Amino acid sequence: MREALEQPGLISLAAGFTDNPSLPVAETRVIIKDLLKGKKGPSHLQYGTTHGDEPLRKLTAQRLARMDKRPKKGKHYNPDRVLITHGSQQLLYILNEILFDPGDIVLVEDPSYFVYLGIMQSHGVHGKGIRMEPDGLDLASLETTLEKLKKSGQLTRLKALYLVSYHSNPTGTTTCAAKKEAALKILKKYEKAAGHPLYLIEDAAYRELSFSGEDTPSALSFHSAANRVIYTSTYSKPFATGLRVGYGFLPEPLFTAAARVKGNHDFGTANFLQQILSSAVANESYEKHVQKLRKRYASKAHAMTRACKKHFPEKIKWEIPEGGLYLWANLPTKVKTDMRSKLFAESLKQKVLYVPGNLCYCDDSTRRKPNHQMRLSYGSASIKDIEEGITRLGRAIKKVM
Amino acid sequence: MREALEQPGLISLAAGFTDNPSLPVAETRVIIKDLLKGKKGPSHLQYGTTHGDEPLRKLTAQRLARMDKRPKKGKHYNPDRVLITHGSQQLLYILNEILFDPGDIVLVEDPSYFVYLGIMQSHGVHGKGIRMEPDGLDLASLETTLEKLKKSGQLTRLKALYLVSYHSNPTGTTTCAAKKEAALKILKKYEKAAGHPLYLIEDAAYRELSFSGEDTPSALSFHSAANRVIYTSTYSKPFATGLRVGYGFLPEPLFTAAARVKGNHDFGTANFLQQILSSAVANESYEKHVQKLRKRYASKAHAMTRACKKHFPEKIKWEIPEGGLYLWANLPTKVKTDMRSKLFAESLKQKVLYVPGNLCYCDDSTRRKPNHQMRLSYGSASIKDIEEGITRLGRAIKKVM
Repeated sequence: MREALEQPGLISLAAGFTDNPSLPVAETRVIIKDLLKGKKGPSHLQYGTTHGDEPLRKLTAQRLARMDKRPKKGKHYNPDRVLITHGSQQLLYILNEILFDPGDIVLVEDPSYFVYLGIMQSHGVHGKGIRMEPDGLDLASLETTLEKLKKSGQLTRLKALYLVSYHSNPTGTTTCAAKKEAALKILKKYEKAAGHPLYLIEDAAYRELSFSGEDTPSALSFHSAANRVIYTSTYSKPFATGLRVGYGFLPEPLFTAAARVKGNHDFGTANFLQQILSSAVANESYEKHVQKLRKRYASKAHAMTRACKKHFPEKIKWEIPEGGLYLWANLPTKVKTDMRSKLFAESLKQKVLYVPGNLCYCDDSTRRKPNHQMRLSYGSASIKDIEEGITRLGRAIKKVM
Repeated sequence: MREALEQPGLISLAAGFTDNPSLPVAETRVIIKDLLKGKKGPSHLQYGTTHGDEPLRKLTAQRLARMDKRPKKGKHYNPDRVLITHGSQQLLYILNEILFDPGDIVLVEDPSYFVYLGIMQSHGVHGKGIRMEPDGLDLASLETTLEKLKKSGQLTRLKALYLVSYHSNPTGTTTCAAKKEAALKILKKYEKAAGHPLYLIEDAAYRELSFSGEDTPSALSFHSAANRVIYTSTYSKPFATGLRVGYGFLPEPLFTAAARVKGNHDFGTANFLQQILSSAVANESYEKHVQKLRKRYASKAHAMTRACKKHFPEKIKWEIPEGGLYLWANLPTKVKTDMRSKLFAESLKQKVLYVPGNLCYCDDSTRRKPNHQMRLSYGSASIKDIEEGITRLGRAIKKVM
């Protein structure tokens, strides 16, 4: 297997890497030149603070309030609630540490972000999958699941709902604002029986990678429930993944707990990276770059869907991505896609790699994991490689079917 | 208290920040200019791998073998054992996660690095302090402690000895090579009764900040026991703390476990920072900078001891630092130094801040924490501020005594 992965000429449609040629080299060069000249130069190479650079926290808060169309802000957009982290991944990890005990339950999309599922698992936290609809979370499924947990006495172990709310990893689904608001209300309803707050962790990592630029407010914008929302996102994916800077908005007292753990992890994200991002956001090279990136990923996504249409058998279905980095393909249920499947082996033989869909489902003894899907990324591969990769994958699928 | 800390004109001899004016601005500028030009530019702004940049892992392994005078290497200096982290702090955190369960025991220097003690505490791990001598760990104290743990049936909960082996935080003590070798043998002797490996975690964060450049081999160099050594260190303190890059050498299977957790934390340290450090080590600007830094800290340490001699009452004792960032001052035992003490309040009034010594001792119900010491850092304050800070502190001490 490992050998196969290291074979030259393998086209990976698996990794969530970002597009290499469009990385903002020139912009970063200009920013750094500026940062490292003059009197303030050394301070940018010094330690920062645990919470994060103050100007960056402010810019982040202002920016989110603007995106959420809450220009008058409100306490949920207070910079004091912003924690800067080493990628948003680190914040997801820290949230697991401060919110959950082994044996706790977290509701997740079915399917969900597989690295997050791994973090949960490593902390002994159980996932429960909530069904998805084209416009996001299936509210009926959410309510049924909560009711079942209540009846079985497990609701006291439930702590949160984790939602990749924009152009999700792996399916590309966006959960509309109305559904987020409704989900918050439903969670609230079960808090009394749970005996503690039920949080919505809104992972907005792909929010800015909407191809059309269309946006929908975050769950923080529903003021009545915003003290139950933890919003996480990142500057890395929309700008440069080699500069790991993520952030989160946390209600008190979670902010204090998370900052304490962050202090133990690393007493603060590398200050130099924060300075770069802070400059990029302030001088709008960040914004301009995101605009370009949207077009770039739109054309890559288009190249992928076009190739799928051409090379995949008709029985294979997928949604046309409207943002993010992934296309989620549904094969006939009898065609297995897991790592031990014939298709996976045949794909490797054809020198193309995908993420097997079963990895994106949480362990749940009450149901069998779907095993006929695949996550295909158009993030890092070139358009030529996307076309060639899908051609090869189509060949592998046809051979196995 | 918080107000006091924010008062203008306060001189902090507390923070472990590094010297601002000597940060390598010019060197970093040259390196980055080079990194961001040409074809490879974008790749430096892309994700890296979880384990860390391959060239940096190699350079790190070669460098340590050379410093340890083991040019022929041996498996303990294999690059495959090097994990690159977001500062060595992150590695210390990860080690706590993979090695210890709540209720476990770790032996630490008495006193030890207080942030590490905080990490232990946050994971429910108990510390046991080992007495120190001028040349490092007191081996008799180590043996007595192990014997006591054995007799009380607690040895099965002991997992490791944590040692800040070079110019330690907080006391500046270096544990000589012979003692490290002996400590490894003593630990080995108790492994059977413990029922599992007893690791030596050697935290060498201040190794390169030896004023004379004098060095002593790490515990990894004792080949017979090196599979029980976890060596952690950092490129941040000797180069630029705003570029957080630390590293560790871990025996298998700890490496695999730590890399898995690192993947969950952040799937790898920011690639751009690693590229900067990799270049700095390869083109020797790192080495040259360390040379300069040694002289710089030597003169700052000298300024501090000179000021202490002049302004402190005679009863106050300290060792002259030979490296690192700290001077450890012993006051008469009746003069308390903790945050609630008269001295701490008086010092704040005089606008000078120190780290109370009691924070550097682990909780241990069998003894009272010493409360008459202080850690004074000459790292970030200017020579002028060091002199003024010690003058103020001397004034506060005299007033309280």
